[in-house]
Amino acid sequence: MENMKTIAVIESCDTKFKEAKFISDFIKNEGLNALVINTATGPAPSYNYDISREEIAESYGTPWKEMEPKSKGEKIDYMKDAVAAYVVKLYEEGKIDGIISVGGLQNTVMAANAMQKLPIGFPKVMATTVASGTRKFDLVVGDKDITVMPAICDFTGLNIVTRQVISNACACCVGMVKCAGQVLTKGDKPVVAVTLMGVTNTGAVAAVEELEKMGLEVIGFHATGVGGATMEDMAANGLVDGILDLTLHELTSEYFGGGFSYGPKAKIRLVESVEKKVPLVISLGGLDFVDFSTSELPDRMDERKYMLHNANTAHIKILPEEAEALGKILAERLSKVTYPVKLLIPTKGMRHNTLEGQELYEPKSDSVLIQTIIENVNDNVEVIVIPHNLDTPEFGVKAAHYIVDEMKKQGKLPQNFGEN
Amino acid sequence: MENMKTIAVIESCDTKFKEAKFISDFIKNEGLNALVINTATGPAPSYNYDISREEIAESYGTPWKEMEPKSKGEKIDYMKDAVAAYVVKLYEEGKIDGIISVGGLQNTVMAANAMQKLPIGFPKVMATTVASGTRKFDLVVGDKDITVMPAICDFTGLNIVTRQVISNACACCVGMVKCAGQVLTKGDKPVVAVTLMGVTNTGAVAAVEELEKMGLEVIGFHATGVGGATMEDMAANGLVDGILDLTLHELTSEYFGGGFSYGPKAKIRLVESVEKKVPLVISLGGLDFVDFSTSELPDRMDERKYMLHNANTAHIKILPEEAEALGKILAERLSKVTYPVKLLIPTKGMRHNTLEGQELYEPKSDSVLIQTIIENVNDNVEVIVIPHNLDTPEFGVKAAHYIVDEMKKQGKLPQNFGEN
Repeated sequence: MENMKTIAVIESCDTKFKEAKFISDFIKNEGLNALVINTATGPAPSYNYDISREEIAESYGTPWKEMEPKSKGEKIDYMKDAVAAYVVKLYEEGKIDGIISVGGLQNTVMAANAMQKLPIGFPKVMATTVASGTRKFDLVVGDKDITVMPAICDFTGLNIVTRQVISNACACCVGMVKCAGQVLTKGDKPVVAVTLMGVTNTGAVAAVEELEKMGLEVIGFHATGVGGATMEDMAANGLVDGILDLTLHELTSEYFGGGFSYGPKAKIRLVESVEKKVPLVISLGGLDFVDFSTSELPDRMDERKYMLHNANTAHIKILPEEAEALGKILAERLSKVTYPVKLLIPTKGMRHNTLEGQELYEPKSDSVLIQTIIENVNDNVEVIVIPHNLDTPEFGVKAAHYIVDEMKKQGKLPQNFGEN
Repeated sequence: MENMKTIAVIESCDTKFKEAKFISDFIKNEGLNALVINTATGPAPSYNYDISREEIAESYGTPWKEMEPKSKGEKIDYMKDAVAAYVVKLYEEGKIDGIISVGGLQNTVMAANAMQKLPIGFPKVMATTVASGTRKFDLVVGDKDITVMPAICDFTGLNIVTRQVISNACACCVGMVKCAGQVLTKGDKPVVAVTLMGVTNTGAVAAVEELEKMGLEVIGFHATGVGGATMEDMAANGLVDGILDLTLHELTSEYFGGGFSYGPKAKIRLVESVEKKVPLVISLGGLDFVDFSTSELPDRMDERKYMLHNANTAHIKILPEEAEALGKILAERLSKVTYPVKLLIPTKGMRHNTLEGQELYEPKSDSVLIQTIIENVNDNVEVIVIPHNLDTPEFGVKAAHYIVDEMKKQGKLPQNFGEN
C-alpha cells in the first residue's frame, strides 16, 4: 500500500457524489488509490469524499463556518483558490500522481484552475460539458496540458453515456499514471526555444534543423496568442537554456488589442525570459502585420495592404504610424535587458509574402519599424543586419549560429561546442 | 498475436515520421499493435508507416497518381474523406480498438474528421496545437468524445516537451483500450433523453429524478448549441426509447442565426427523432429568449426586456413578432410528425425569471408564441396546458409522467410500468 500511486478526484460531492464514487471505484479497481476532494459550496449535504470542504477551507486560512454566510460567488471564489493551493501542496509533498474531475461549467472552472497550477507532464484529466461547440479551449486548458474529455451529455447522473465517458476519462488518467505522466524536467541536452508561425515557418524550421544538427534539443512555440507566453513561463521555470525569439507577432496583436493571435499573456513576452537572463537572440518575425477574422477587420482598411490567409482570416500590413508605435513598445520592453542580447534585422521582409511585388510588400512600414527600434534600444542590445527575408533558410541558419554563440558566451554551452 | 488489440495512428509521415515511430514504439511497448496510416499529401518522401497514402487513395476510388497533379487543397480534401472512410471500414471490420494522432492544424482537421465518424465510447485521442487560446472546441471534437491533449509547443520534432505530451497522449489511448473504451450500446434499461439548460434546470432535473425513481435510464442534454443535435443523432441511431424535449431554446438561436446557444446542427432538432418515430413529449423551455454576448447584441435593444446572465452574456426576451415567426417555425417542424406526440404548454413562463415582476416577464410575447403554435400544429400533436412555470418541480414531475405514458402507448414500456 505504501507505494501505491494516488489520483486526486476533484468533485462537487453534493450533486456529483454518484460520479465521485464511480470514479473512485474505477481507480481502485485498477490498483491505484483515489483521494476524493469535495468542492461543494452549496447548502445540500455531500457524500463519498475523503477530504471535506471544511478541511480545504481551513487549510487556506478561513474556517468554512466563516465562509458559510457569504454569497455564493464569494464562496466559489474562495474555494477555487483554496482547492488549487491544497492540490499544489499534495503534489509538492509527493502525495498525488494524477488528478481527474468530471463536471459542468462551474465544476470545470474550479477543477481546471487547480490543474493549471500543476506542472506540464503531470496527468490531469477534465471530463467536461464545456468541451463543445463554440466554447474556447483556454476556458479549460489555460496554457497547460490538461487532457479534455468532451462529456457528450450532461452529468445529471450515471447513465449509458456518462458511464462510458467517465470510464474513458478514468482510463486516460490511470493510463498516464501507470505508463507515462513524468513531470517535465530538463534532460542532459541544452534546450533552445524557437518561436514560429505559419508565415515564418521556413526560416524558423531551418533554424530548428540547424540547431538539432548541432546536437541541441529544440522546442518550437507557435507565437500566435499562447505559445510565446508558454515559452516565457518555461524560461522562468529554468527549462530553457537559450531563446531564439524569431517571431514577435504577438506584440502586434497586443498593440491592436485583438485578432486571431491575441492573447492576454502577451504582456509577459520578452519579460520573464529577460528577468531570468536567458541567452536571447531576437528578430522581427510577423511584427509587421496583424491577423483578423474577416468579420472583425480594423478600421482604415482602405489605406492598408492585406491578403486573405484563408477564407476566414485576413493578414493586414500595419501602417507606418502603427509601426512607429510598435517599434517604441518593443524598444521599451528591451530597455529592461541587463545582459548582452542580439537583435537580428531582416532587410527583405519580416515574413512570407513581403518581397517586392508580393501582397504585403510595404517598405515604408518596415523601415519606420526598424528605424524606431534601432534608435530606441538600449546598449545591451546588439543590432545585426541580415540581408535576407526572415522566412528563408539563409536567415534561419544564420540565426541558429547567433543563438549558439550567445549561449557559449553566457556559459550555457562549452566554448568548443559545434566545432569538430 | 491474433487477439492483440490494435491502435490506428493517423500521421502525416513526411513531416511527422519521427513522431509516428515514437507513437508506434510506445504502443508496442505496452503490448498492443500499432497501425500507422500515412496521410501526407505533399511531395516530400514519407517514412515509418504501415498503410500508404496510395492504398488509402485507391481504396476510396481514385489512385494517388491521378490525385498527384491536383492542387494542394484538392488533395487534402480528397484524403480527408478517404482516410475517414478507411478508418470507418477498419472499425467496422473489428480491426482497430483505438485511434490516435498528433499534429498541427492541418493534421488535426484531417484526423479529427476521421475520429468524428467513429462511435461514442471508442477510444480516440488527438494531441494538437489547436487546443489552446481562443480556438473553439468544435474544430477538434465536433459532437464526439474525442480526447484532446493540448500540445503546449509545436510538433517540430521530438524534444523534452513533445516526448512528454505524446507519451501522455499514447498512455490515454492505451489506458482506454486496455481498461475501458466500450462502444456505446443500449443496456437493458429503457432510456429517456431530457433536454435542459441552466434556466430550465429546476424543472428538468425534477423530471430526471422522477424518471430515475421509476427505474428508467435518463440522459440529460444541454440544449445550448450542441446537446440537442447530439440527442437527435443518438435517437437516429436507436439509442433512446423516449424523448422529453423540455428545452427548445436552440430553435430560437437558430432563428436569430447566432448567439451563445447557436449551433449549425439545430436544423436537425425535432427532425431525426421524429423521422425515427421516437416517443416524444415536447415543451417550450427557453424558446422565449435568446442569449448573446454583451459585445454582439441584436438590434432593437431599446424595445426588449433583457437581463445579464453573467458579466459577458445577456438573456434577451424575444419580441411578439419574433414569437409569431418562431411559433410558425416550430409548428412547421412538428407538421412532419406522423404519430401521436404531446406538447406541454406552461402558462406561467418558459424559463426561470419569467414570473410577474421578474426581469423577463413579458406575457405578450409568450401568448403570441403559444397562440401561434396551437393554431398551426398538426393533429398528431396533442396540446396539454400545465398551469405552472416550466422551471418548477411541479412541471417537471408532470412532464415525466407524460413521457412515460407515451412510451407505454408506443410499446417501449410494459403497460403496468410504474405501478406497484
